[in-house]
Amino acid sequence: MLVIVTYDVSTVTAAGQKRLRRVAKVCERYGQRVQKSVFECQVGDMEFEELERELLDEIDPDTDNLRFYRLTEQQRLRIKQYGVFRSIDYEGTLII
Amino acid sequence: MLVIVTYDVSTVTAAGQKRLRRVAKVCERYGQRVQKSVFECQVGDMEFEELERELLDEIDPDTDNLRFYRLTEQQRLRIKQYGVFRSIDYEGTLII
Repeated sequence: MLVIVTYDVSTVTAAGQKRLRRVAKVCERYGQRVQKSVFECQVGDMEFEELERELLDEIDPDTDNLRFYRLTEQQRLRIKQYGVFRSIDYEGTLII
Repeated sequence: MLVIVTYDVSTVTAAGQKRLRRVAKVCERYGQRVQKSVFECQVGDMEFEELERELLDEIDPDTDNLRFYRLTEQQRLRIKQYGVFRSIDYEGTLII
């Protein structure tokens, strides 16, 4: 299945900035970054469980938010996209 | 259907910051903000077309990115969410 992972990580503290980097790093191992805080991950059931567990280990549930949208292959064809996406170093820019 | 709208708007310029606010304002009229740059919109086919057209009028395709994930009702049950989401004034914080 295709899992859309979106996250908001509070970066007001250095610890938060570190969490943001770690969340992105986990997602990068499972899928493709399509926006700053959105990844598309093609995974099986077990991989999804791992991804979920790893991300839950990283976020602070009191300040961060994490969402998973699980799409079927059919659903995938219904994704629409506009504009550019450049895979720049978001961690670099977001830490400012 | 439930449409997940995610966007990256480049805010390096004042014009970009304005676009970001306008994109959020459009989305607010169609659905519920669930993260800083993620909205969930319950819309019919015609409403979706309007939403899409309004957002395409706002973004700059050379610098911004906009994605639509169209989910069925069944899919909606498969959404997983963790952590908090506080509906703070994101425009206020993002303009800094």
